[in-house]
Amino acid sequence: MNAELIAVGTEILLGDIVNTDAQTVSQGLSELGIDVFYQTVVGDNPDRLERVIREAADRADIIITTGGLGPTLDDLTKETLARVFGKEMVLHEPSLARIRDFFARIGREMTPNNEKQAWLPKDCNVFVNEWGTAPGCAFEAAGKHVLMLPGPPRECEPMFRKCAMPYLYPLAGGCIVSRNIRVFGLGESAMEDRLHDLMESMQNPTIAPYAKISECYARVTAKAKDEEAAQALLAPVVQQVADLLGDDVYGIDVDSLEQVVGDGLRERGLTLAVAESCTGGLLSKRITDVPGCSEYYLGGVCSYCNEVKEKILGVKGETLKAYGAVSQQTAEEMAEGVARALGADVGVGITGIAGPGGGTEEKPTGLVYISVYFDGGCTTRRTVNTYGRDRVRNHAASTALDMIRRRILR
Amino acid sequence: MNAELIAVGTEILLGDIVNTDAQTVSQGLSELGIDVFYQTVVGDNPDRLERVIREAADRADIIITTGGLGPTLDDLTKETLARVFGKEMVLHEPSLARIRDFFARIGREMTPNNEKQAWLPKDCNVFVNEWGTAPGCAFEAAGKHVLMLPGPPRECEPMFRKCAMPYLYPLAGGCIVSRNIRVFGLGESAMEDRLHDLMESMQNPTIAPYAKISECYARVTAKAKDEEAAQALLAPVVQQVADLLGDDVYGIDVDSLEQVVGDGLRERGLTLAVAESCTGGLLSKRITDVPGCSEYYLGGVCSYCNEVKEKILGVKGETLKAYGAVSQQTAEEMAEGVARALGADVGVGITGIAGPGGGTEEKPTGLVYISVYFDGGCTTRRTVNTYGRDRVRNHAASTALDMIRRRILR
Repeated sequence: MNAELIAVGTEILLGDIVNTDAQTVSQGLSELGIDVFYQTVVGDNPDRLERVIREAADRADIIITTGGLGPTLDDLTKETLARVFGKEMVLHEPSLARIRDFFARIGREMTPNNEKQAWLPKDCNVFVNEWGTAPGCAFEAAGKHVLMLPGPPRECEPMFRKCAMPYLYPLAGGCIVSRNIRVFGLGESAMEDRLHDLMESMQNPTIAPYAKISECYARVTAKAKDEEAAQALLAPVVQQVADLLGDDVYGIDVDSLEQVVGDGLRERGLTLAVAESCTGGLLSKRITDVPGCSEYYLGGVCSYCNEVKEKILGVKGETLKAYGAVSQQTAEEMAEGVARALGADVGVGITGIAGPGGGTEEKPTGLVYISVYFDGGCTTRRTVNTYGRDRVRNHAASTALDMIRRRILR
Repeated sequence: MNAELIAVGTEILLGDIVNTDAQTVSQGLSELGIDVFYQTVVGDNPDRLERVIREAADRADIIITTGGLGPTLDDLTKETLARVFGKEMVLHEPSLARIRDFFARIGREMTPNNEKQAWLPKDCNVFVNEWGTAPGCAFEAAGKHVLMLPGPPRECEPMFRKCAMPYLYPLAGGCIVSRNIRVFGLGESAMEDRLHDLMESMQNPTIAPYAKISECYARVTAKAKDEEAAQALLAPVVQQVADLLGDDVYGIDVDSLEQVVGDGLRERGLTLAVAESCTGGLLSKRITDVPGCSEYYLGGVCSYCNEVKEKILGVKGETLKAYGAVSQQTAEEMAEGVARALGADVGVGITGIAGPGGGTEEKPTGLVYISVYFDGGCTTRRTVNTYGRDRVRNHAASTALDMIRRRILR
């Protein structure tokens, strides 16, 4: 079974937007074990679209289109596919009713061209759009499966996951479920190394390693006749992977390190405050990305100059003089100082040289000290990262969160 | 003249990465006035790549490939293109010398397979890779222009701009130069409205509106025989656009609002400190995204609870009680308080409800007060934004920067 992706939209050809739908759909097909050999982008032009469709029909079992389902005249994906595959277009009343409801709900008038969205190929499988107005659909003709999804990513992704993937399960031979084991403190290749033998020995579930900024994860995917059977296959393997990766696993099927740390602090009734130099507020920003963080997060101080370190955080002048602003000693006094100043149980201090300038032989660009104060004492780490300002800062913020997790949340 | 883009890489078909190179190249071709009718992605498979190349040669004047120029066996873009167009492959000694130098510089051994990157189609135009190891190249054969660029975006983008675009100038009938007029405080459609008559009346230069997160910009693009002639065409139109948009223009050909504000503060010898509640450190993070910001940025306080507002920033208990933490009065006391506490000339205070929870009828989710303290007084704005937590926070941080610009830097 192989699938070909066709994105329809002149705005992609002009470079106004990037084709993220292709990634969304390809990832899902990869999980299903369906090969993708070609992705094509074509504009809102019926002749060129038809050419691409015929080419795809010639070489693929499944054709999945994204875009061109909207209300305007240049939205012509459905009409063109119906013509190529000899299907009649009919008005789908339930879709029309949904579109009418949608406009009534947002209190705007429904212009007549919106009705076009409810015209679908006859006898197709309708994908109800809960995230916008244009329904998607699927049909089988001439031995090919044809699926149509809307272009906007916030509609395309959920419809693909919720409607198109279940449609594809029987073609892929069952139901597919994945679980993600999130890891910090281990590179992707080191993770792969630890999992290598297990990965090699497995057919179902499969285990795949992925890298993200400053972290990585292992995705375990099982194929079975239904969700329950897939979960039963997954459980022991997820446990094996977690055991092999040990303490470097920060969570399974979780959103982020900041979410895990936040949940842990909330459960233990602990409060947090942070003092940042080189990360400049990034750690505080990431902690407050999590809704509801005011339950455990009291606040932070960005001390971008020595005066603020001394005056607000109480870092000693002698410390700054003897060891410098970028030093283990300063990081520790920042961590303890911010906890005291803000009255928090846990304090974090980060000081370093984010670059590009400012490095010396003794203290190179990319050097960062990170300290966590808790229960009367500090744990401190020294890291050096040479991948540029953004990566240095992100890695330092992630390391701080991970240190809280290891020190306090276990 | 029309071009077709072919991205070569199985990792795109698997959904591991998104094809941003296609956007980069399409944007540039759009600036050059070269049409793109198709973009295709194909894996590291010689037969399927050849099929796609033949298809492209059948319908396009220019073929641009990205990816598949690396040292490993599955990098086969050059070899396949050379075969299809009947070109011999030869070793390009200057490229080999550059690759050897590169490995010597980073102190790693050059494995023999790296030599493969220096083999290029005979008599091609070599694009020197200053950002990595694999050179790109271009040749003309069978009436088609064929250009090859490396896949990694940090190599593809600069090589496209610096090497491929100049190669394409004569095909596009000259040299193309763009200037970007960056705007905050005006939506994209309002900007288009103000520019409408001018846009309609222009053929060369052209004016195009673009939207970004919380801001927008107008790109003015001129086509001429050389750079100097293009700049001469641009100058009066850029001035006209800037006049029509007035105070909402924060810069022309600048990196970001935070860069403009930073430069302005540095020039005036002023220092800055910020106090954030709902933005949680985001403003501080953005200010410190700019290298060298320690010349004007002293630091910030994220006051995520009332105690920190009172204790560190000196917001009065009565103010919090009478008006609440989210109020004009609190924002102003935060702005003045952080300037005093950190000894800065300019202080910013931001307090609001980022959501999703926490809103009331009187103070809805998305309500933010932003205050700038300078020279003994405060300027304050109240904004309401309903596009979710991230957008509320981003818009508040941008508004604060823009208020500094309008208040102090004019």
